[in-house]
Amino acid sequence: MSIASASPQTCTLIENVTAATMTNADLGLIEEATIFVQDGFIAWVGPRDALPANLRQAFLGSEAAGKAHRIDGHGMLATPALTDCHTHLVWAGNRAEEFRQRLHGASYQEIAEQGGGILSTVRATRAASEEELFRQSFPRAVALMQQGVAHIEIKSGYGLSLEDELKQLRVARRIGEVLPIKVSTTLLAAHALPPEYQGRSDEYIDYVVRDILPAAANEGLVDAVDVFCENIGFTRQQTDRVFRAAQQLALPVKLHAEQLSDQDGAALVASYQGLSADHLEYLSDKGIRAMADAGTVAVLLPGAFYFLRETKLPPIDALREAGVPIAVATDANPGSSPIIQLPLMMHFACSFFRMTPEEAWLGVTTHAARALGDSEQGMLKEGQRGDIALWNLRRPEEICYTFGVNPLRALLIAGQEVGEH
Amino acid sequence: MSIASASPQTCTLIENVTAATMTNADLGLIEEATIFVQDGFIAWVGPRDALPANLRQAFLGSEAAGKAHRIDGHGMLATPALTDCHTHLVWAGNRAEEFRQRLHGASYQEIAEQGGGILSTVRATRAASEEELFRQSFPRAVALMQQGVAHIEIKSGYGLSLEDELKQLRVARRIGEVLPIKVSTTLLAAHALPPEYQGRSDEYIDYVVRDILPAAANEGLVDAVDVFCENIGFTRQQTDRVFRAAQQLALPVKLHAEQLSDQDGAALVASYQGLSADHLEYLSDKGIRAMADAGTVAVLLPGAFYFLRETKLPPIDALREAGVPIAVATDANPGSSPIIQLPLMMHFACSFFRMTPEEAWLGVTTHAARALGDSEQGMLKEGQRGDIALWNLRRPEEICYTFGVNPLRALLIAGQEVGEH
Ligand SMILES: [Zn+2]
Ligand SMILES: [Zn+2]
Repeated sequence: MSIASASPQTCTLIENVTAATMTNADLGLIEEATIFVQDGFIAWVGPRDALPANLRQAFLGSEAAGKAHRIDGHGMLATPALTDCHTHLVWAGNRAEEFRQRLHGASYQEIAEQGGGILSTVRATRAASEEELFRQSFPRAVALMQQGVAHIEIKSGYGLSLEDELKQLRVARRIGEVLPIKVSTTLLAAHALPPEYQGRSDEYIDYVVRDILPAAANEGLVDAVDVFCENIGFTRQQTDRVFRAAQQLALPVKLHAEQLSDQDGAALVASYQGLSADHLEYLSDKGIRAMADAGTVAVLLPGAFYFLRETKLPPIDALREAGVPIAVATDANPGSSPIIQLPLMMHFACSFFRMTPEEAWLGVTTHAARALGDSEQGMLKEGQRGDIALWNLRRPEEICYTFGVNPLRALLIAGQEVGEH
Repeated sequence: MSIASASPQTCTLIENVTAATMTNADLGLIEEATIFVQDGFIAWVGPRDALPANLRQAFLGSEAAGKAHRIDGHGMLATPALTDCHTHLVWAGNRAEEFRQRLHGASYQEIAEQGGGILSTVRATRAASEEELFRQSFPRAVALMQQGVAHIEIKSGYGLSLEDELKQLRVARRIGEVLPIKVSTTLLAAHALPPEYQGRSDEYIDYVVRDILPAAANEGLVDAVDVFCENIGFTRQQTDRVFRAAQQLALPVKLHAEQLSDQDGAALVASYQGLSADHLEYLSDKGIRAMADAGTVAVLLPGAFYFLRETKLPPIDALREAGVPIAVATDANPGSSPIIQLPLMMHFACSFFRMTPEEAWLGVTTHAARALGDSEQGMLKEGQRGDIALWNLRRPEEICYTFGVNPLRALLIAGQEVGEH
């Protein structure tokens, strides 16, 4: 990004907003702010009338060349566009009938015997063509975008075979190509044991590290690698094998850790300088220290907490005290969090987890971007991408307090307004 | 409504839908259904090809006269449009700052001392002009309509003076005039004690029954009368006085009952053949029996349960067993349920209250209409208003299971498609 290039650049000047820059714990609010975006990146943010003369000049030059756009914010709130840093957004089928049966008294056992549970999603995802999988998944990404999200992480993990994991990741990439948003892909082949490997989980891990991971990486489909480390998932040792393979390919790692029990997974992912440890209801003090030391983000998923009717809270106070950055995401998936709504997660984070509105905001902006290794997004400051949301809100906390009337008024990606709201 | 009138009528024929008629506990599903709406009312619902010849003839006649509309449902789900039967939708100001302070550790006491709580909403609502109150409230009703709601109840109760209660109710009426939806108004002057009556609650009730109620009724602003009967509200005896005054004006009653304690309010409202008793976390067996005998609807409000972090559940099993019709509503209000989202309440009803998806659907359609004394809406059957929602869902339970992608594809009111989705 060059500010002082010779020929006029595409510029966007956003004036008359309250900017929540996300540059500190109080959200770095600037009243009556101006934001200047040049060639897709933020060139300046500050109080009205303080815009440097050279930038003002650059804007006028662009305006004369018909390449400038001016937005009057009318006192609206401007924030970085949101990042949903943990989703399983690409899946086929749905499990509403299972949900209905449970509410009519069927046990998990009975549902599993009828072919329900995660393997029903695996069956449907395997059976779907890439086209059909895209068709079913695409509206979910559109919904997130309409809520102000400009960066979505999408995990594989319902294919569980070379072919079907690649299919999921290709659909994820395609969503990022069709929509103006950014998509980060995460290979989660070690999500569940596919039925054909029943009783042979080590052999499945062999398959993941020897075949699936290299092939997916080779096709450019892997921005990070994840594992479901749990009693009902994969062991710490198996997780370690996957992480080593990722490391050899220079791919960053993250982990579904301590959701249902303490597997010491957070310390493991931290030992790899992992991007994030996610869920964390059963996180230990040891895990917290390791994450703090490594700078690993804690990704909290209140949607799964709600949908699974959990009662054990993640150790928010201890994370806060240790200075671990906390992110909040949808965990959008058909089994444990079929909720495609990031602002509702901010509401849940405050209600269920007693996080402050400031923490919820940082959790879907700068900390969420960090959980994806994205240092160019999540704050309103010079050098960040011009991904900016304008909200019909006076104060940031309003989005954590009320819900139902979509407050998004505009979403800018690289300084350009996208979609309809 | 006359089916066999001589001149061609305005007709809408909806074909190729799964109709959830809400005519029985299993939702009365009809696969590959056709719905025929004539002059605003449903004239026929049934399986494809079974449309009676005279109605087919009437449709062709209307079509020839350019007064007919045909909708191909493409296999979508058709249901009655939704009814939100308990809201306090008209208010000014917001209490997000209070919410933020609580999450930063402020006590209710501290917040009350700073002028927070319900009286801050009363102050803001009193201070707002009718125009300003409309401007702030209108988007909430639009949001509900965009979710498939065609009938909204709106209570007063933030004015607490003759002038300001009338202002609130006039705004509610105006919403029903500007939007194509139906609005039912409820006078809830006995919602809280206004500060100028501190320590003189009986005198305030005098004022309500002598001045506010007759004036509001006289202006045609009162479809029903409600009271907040609670330790922190009004006593059973004061409630009885308001109900007697309503009875003298031939106005139906409903009640905020047993939300925080058992005040024997449900039995009281049932003794007046009341439309509904609402909240009901502390409802007794005696109250349930009285409601069952009187046909009083139980209106459950899971949004307040969520937002107030309640743990005591309303006695769903006992209500179900006694055959009390159960409705579900948003309770949309700035203090205890600032959530303007009826489908989310269906989700909450299933998750928090373990209601079945069928109960949640009946709760926002036929039972909700009944809670408003509206016998012309809430079912897809002959004689009901042509208020119909078309959803991009295959099965009704999907709306209780997933959330975030708005499944509404069309909302018809009196057979005419409204708004944009
Ligand atoms: Zn997950
Ligand atoms: Zn209420």
